[in-house]
Amino acid sequence: MKKVGIIMGSASDLPVVTGAIDTLKQYGVPFEVHVYSAHRTPDESRDFACSAREKGFGAIIAAAGKAAHLAGAIAANTTLPVIGIPVKSSTLDGLDALLSTVQMPSGMPVATVAIDGAVNAALLAIEILAVSDEELEQKLGDARNAGKAKVLKSNAEIEAQFNN
Amino acid sequence: MKKVGIIMGSASDLPVVTGAIDTLKQYGVPFEVHVYSAHRTPDESRDFACSAREKGFGAIIAAAGKAAHLAGAIAANTTLPVIGIPVKSSTLDGLDALLSTVQMPSGMPVATVAIDGAVNAALLAIEILAVSDEELEQKLGDARNAGKAKVLKSNAEIEAQFNN
Amino acid sequence: MKKVGIIMGSASDLPVVTGAIDTLKQYGVPFEVHVYSAHRTPDESRDFACSAREKGFGAIIAAAGKAAHLAGAIAANTTLPVIGIPVKSSTLDGLDALLSTVQMPSGMPVATVAIDGAVNAALLAIEILAVSDEELEQKLGDARNAGKAKVLKSNAEIEAQFNN
Amino acid sequence: MKKVGIIMGSASDLPVVTGAIDTLKQYGVPFEVHVYSAHRTPDESRDFACSAREKGFGAIIAAAGKAAHLAGAIAANTTLPVIGIPVKSSTLDGLDALLSTVQMPSGMPVATVAIDGAVNAALLAIEILAVSDEELEQKLGDARNAGKAKVLKSNAEIEAQFNN
Amino acid sequence: MKKVGIIMGSASDLPVVTGAIDTLKQYGVPFEVHVYSAHRTPDESRDFACSAREKGFGAIIAAAGKAAHLAGAIAANTTLPVIGIPVKSSTLDGLDALLSTVQMPSGMPVATVAIDGAVNAALLAIEILAVSDEELEQKLGDARNAGKAKVLKSNAEIEAQFNN
Amino acid sequence: MKKVGIIMGSASDLPVVTGAIDTLKQYGVPFEVHVYSAHRTPDESRDFACSAREKGFGAIIAAAGKAAHLAGAIAANTTLPVIGIPVKSSTLDGLDALLSTVQMPSGMPVATVAIDGAVNAALLAIEILAVSDEELEQKLGDARNAGKAKVLKSNAEIEAQFNN
Amino acid sequence: MKKVGIIMGSASDLPVVTGAIDTLKQYGVPFEVHVYSAHRTPDESRDFACSAREKGFGAIIAAAGKAAHLAGAIAANTTLPVIGIPVKSSTLDGLDALLSTVQMPSGMPVATVAIDGAVNAALLAIEILAVSDEELEQKLGDARNAGKAKVLKSNAEIEAQFNN
Amino acid sequence: MKKVGIIMGSASDLPVVTGAIDTLKQYGVPFEVHVYSAHRTPDESRDFACSAREKGFGAIIAAAGKAAHLAGAIAANTTLPVIGIPVKSSTLDGLDALLSTVQMPSGMPVATVAIDGAVNAALLAIEILAVSDEELEQKLGDARNAGKAKVLKSNAEIEAQFNN
Repeated sequence: MKKVGIIMGSASDLPVVTGAIDTLKQYGVPFEVHVYSAHRTPDESRDFACSAREKGFGAIIAAAGKAAHLAGAIAANTTLPVIGIPVKSSTLDGLDALLSTVQMPSGMPVATVAIDGAVNAALLAIEILAVSDEELEQKLGDARNAGKAKVLKSNAEIEAQFNN
Repeated sequence: MKKVGIIMGSASDLPVVTGAIDTLKQYGVPFEVHVYSAHRTPDESRDFACSAREKGFGAIIAAAGKAAHLAGAIAANTTLPVIGIPVKSSTLDGLDALLSTVQMPSGMPVATVAIDGAVNAALLAIEILAVSDEELEQKLGDARNAGKAKVLKSNAEIEAQFNN
Repeated sequence: MKKVGIIMGSASDLPVVTGAIDTLKQYGVPFEVHVYSAHRTPDESRDFACSAREKGFGAIIAAAGKAAHLAGAIAANTTLPVIGIPVKSSTLDGLDALLSTVQMPSGMPVATVAIDGAVNAALLAIEILAVSDEELEQKLGDARNAGKAKVLKSNAEIEAQFNN
Repeated sequence: MKKVGIIMGSASDLPVVTGAIDTLKQYGVPFEVHVYSAHRTPDESRDFACSAREKGFGAIIAAAGKAAHLAGAIAANTTLPVIGIPVKSSTLDGLDALLSTVQMPSGMPVATVAIDGAVNAALLAIEILAVSDEELEQKLGDARNAGKAKVLKSNAEIEAQFNN
Repeated sequence: MKKVGIIMGSASDLPVVTGAIDTLKQYGVPFEVHVYSAHRTPDESRDFACSAREKGFGAIIAAAGKAAHLAGAIAANTTLPVIGIPVKSSTLDGLDALLSTVQMPSGMPVATVAIDGAVNAALLAIEILAVSDEELEQKLGDARNAGKAKVLKSNAEIEAQFNN
Repeated sequence: MKKVGIIMGSASDLPVVTGAIDTLKQYGVPFEVHVYSAHRTPDESRDFACSAREKGFGAIIAAAGKAAHLAGAIAANTTLPVIGIPVKSSTLDGLDALLSTVQMPSGMPVATVAIDGAVNAALLAIEILAVSDEELEQKLGDARNAGKAKVLKSNAEIEAQFNN
Repeated sequence: MKKVGIIMGSASDLPVVTGAIDTLKQYGVPFEVHVYSAHRTPDESRDFACSAREKGFGAIIAAAGKAAHLAGAIAANTTLPVIGIPVKSSTLDGLDALLSTVQMPSGMPVATVAIDGAVNAALLAIEILAVSDEELEQKLGDARNAGKAKVLKSNAEIEAQFNN
Repeated sequence: MKKVGIIMGSASDLPVVTGAIDTLKQYGVPFEVHVYSAHRTPDESRDFACSAREKGFGAIIAAAGKAAHLAGAIAANTTLPVIGIPVKSSTLDGLDALLSTVQMPSGMPVATVAIDGAVNAALLAIEILAVSDEELEQKLGDARNAGKAKVLKSNAEIEAQFNN
């Protein structure tokens, strides 16, 4: 199976990124985690992106805050699908990171998820790998069913509490 | 090759969506275009999403404006990657559609591109299909090179005009 | 008397929704509370909406955060008045939920109240039922008077404290 | 049948409000149109609101732009459901009117629709009257079917144009 | 000397409004404090505004949050200068109150100060009274000098700490 | 009678400022118009502000766009009431000018009106002068009555057109 | 004298960038114009930045729209001062470009000017070169005087037109 | 070596400004810190700016919150490069200060850094001085290398923790 790359712009993004790591583990999808900064280590970011396909990656998740250029910088150097997680920082509630990640110019898509949406970033990567992997697709379907069951259980509890 | 589904919430979104259609044609990627509204034809939207994988789709692009629920409604009924295009309408400059598309709850990712970013939506779909399709990947690489060449040509013209 | 349906997208919305439950209790208006997710349990959401009128509901309140599609998804499947409560979540201060709830396309209204405005959602549902229910209307009038009396009491206390 | 009141804050709001008037006509719902300004004719606004129920109104639609106080001023003087249309004016794209209309304090709900969403305001009023009017409900259902048919027709045309 | 009226929409606005009360006390400007709600006690708000001039008021300060209609409702019923304080509440950081207060339609000005800017509201009222009151103007000038001295003292301390 | 100063940051603001000039003319209030830039002619701005009171001004209106510092710069050099008009420019729809004008620090109030709200700026200046000028107050009352009559006339026309 | 580099992300930014070119010409400051895209020609962008200092550049201006990464990408590869011009594009009025340019992480400053503020970008570059160039500083002072004279002339004209 | 001036609008800005002070110390760049308010001590602000060049300053950093006029007021009185730090205050998350600082009119640039971006303001000042100072440039390059090394170390730790 192809690997998922998880790149964060700074080690301080780890608390957000953990949601992606845990999700990939849960699905048994192989992954690598790296800290590469679009601005502090631009060459390492580029080298990673340039060689990602041949190293067996199938999708790359990039998480960054503020003027979040990381996902775009990765996308500029690979034709693999790149998934951007805008990370909320101390001001502007993540709006800066959202716009910096999603408003990419024509030719260089970044698949953007919600602010701090690391779990969804991982799920999107898994969906991408599952396009041609029935077993993985089955796991996604199972998780959907589990998610549904969880809501139904919540519903049953709430109904028991309030409706009679 | 798997097909790409392009769903628009209203026929009035066609001028935006055309960017995606033309891009897929250019790459020779098979696609289907449909008008399904999350609100006016919710059952058709759901039925399309539920059966999309078995019908040979590999990714689905959904374009909608205002309280843009279409991409999320599709995503709720398939484990295929769903790509959302927030469409700018008469007020708020597309911010409403962007937030309605990207801020999806945990468990249901929508790969969101820029406001009116239909070309990028198609490219993202192609990147997804190209994960396991070398020929398609080659075309993406060629396009990147063409894009690069175009910028270099612009640069040469501008340099000729202003630098001496 | 017709019932009011209160739907929340996730059990985590209960602290907000409690304001609606308590208000309906106070007015003696029958209600049912459910957890249905537009994305995790789309079929249950739809089934509830489709059968709501015949089950004796007169209005439906839907509370959800982020890309808040729940109220719209309910509205798409019933001609009962649907009231949307945009719920503030961890980023963007509820603006995402507000725009996702209120900016509905033509043909599918959602009666949107303030961010986290659960009490007003319940009052709006009661006002709707009271259009043809004089006794209920009387209670609304009484509550208005009580609200007025409370402000006048505050005023008297503040005047006593500051004016002489 | 109860009447719907349509109040606009200024005659200049008529182009937006026309969407509501036409919709009510289409459904054969009786209505009255008035120009009352929360600021220029506050007494007339209040008198209208205070006597609306006894004059046979079942819902009131209020349209205003900028610091849009009209819907709230009406709501303060009646227990009828009040529907607010935020009107886009020359700056801020209607965001000022949206927030001024929807962010009402606890106790005084305004059922807010989209910016310039006059058709939906009328439909919401009709839905409110239809809670206890089967014939009217039937018309709403018919319109939903017509809306659905229109989307399906668009879909058929688009499919014919692009899919083969 | 004419009095300043301080109106708050709810007793919960008192912590903000205290800044205005203290400032007026400091200047020895007579004032009255009231709690009147544009929505819960619209008649009392109007009656206060209508009679304010003849009761000896020279300016009115109105503080309210969310869909802050209070200052506008007062302004609609008096030709005295009305000063609006937008109060920050639990969501949107006061932007809703700011736009609801400042974006008044032509003909009905509200002199808006910063979000939670109660001290400045009082100073503006004092400046208005001081237009024709030399003694009061002298106090304003003295306060400016004191404010300047305070900054110069801060500057001296900071300079002593960092520059050598 | 005291004069009103109208300062614009650039001659390009004249189309907006004209609304203030015409209003003051209409009321027979003496005024002076100047172009002073907070940034290009800071000394002239300051000198005007410093000497405004002794030259017989009773209020100063300052109009500026973008990072609109003019009103604040005037306010820093006079204890006269300063009224700020945020002017909409080519980007951001006037939000930049609004925040730059209204969010003044404690001690330096600027009475801010709506974006491009020049008529209201003039009316606010007139209201300030009218605090101690019965004749002027009478004119303001007359204008309010005229404004009311205009709305009532609109109302009569709309009623004649739509209600029967 | 050191040169100023002007980089635009796309030839379509030329109409904005022209303001910078003309200003540099006016001051007789040598410059080079290039089209380098952070995403389409990342290597050329980097190479330009890496060698800019040794090639005799003293400051670099970078103009880009949407998710404007160009200035940051240049800044990541040089210790020369980098000046960012956020360019307004078809949606969001330049707010996306502003936040993407200015919200740079610690360690990598971008000197950001106003949206579409190309003249100021050039002036800032000239100010930087003028820190150690008295002749250039003299020109800046002359331009300030000319700017001041222009405002004073406008003022004289406006005064002649309105004051008598 | 030329000095860097650090001006804060209020002593309460010191916690933010400390980031700039520490950075300048680290680089051994001489600096002076002052508290000058654009509004409370406008003359001192101006005098500082007017004489800054002849006193040996090479760049000026100005930090202010809310309607942050300080950087612009300094820029209006010097042709030295002025760097603005928008300071986040109690409301609006610094957006008010950002727009008030960056949206300067043509002719008066302010080099704006991120909200609360004091370290970057200092680095930008150092970059400006380093344009003609090789030793200083060397230090900047060393710091870049140190920053890069720090990211690489983080990367090594994260890789050790998650990849095997």
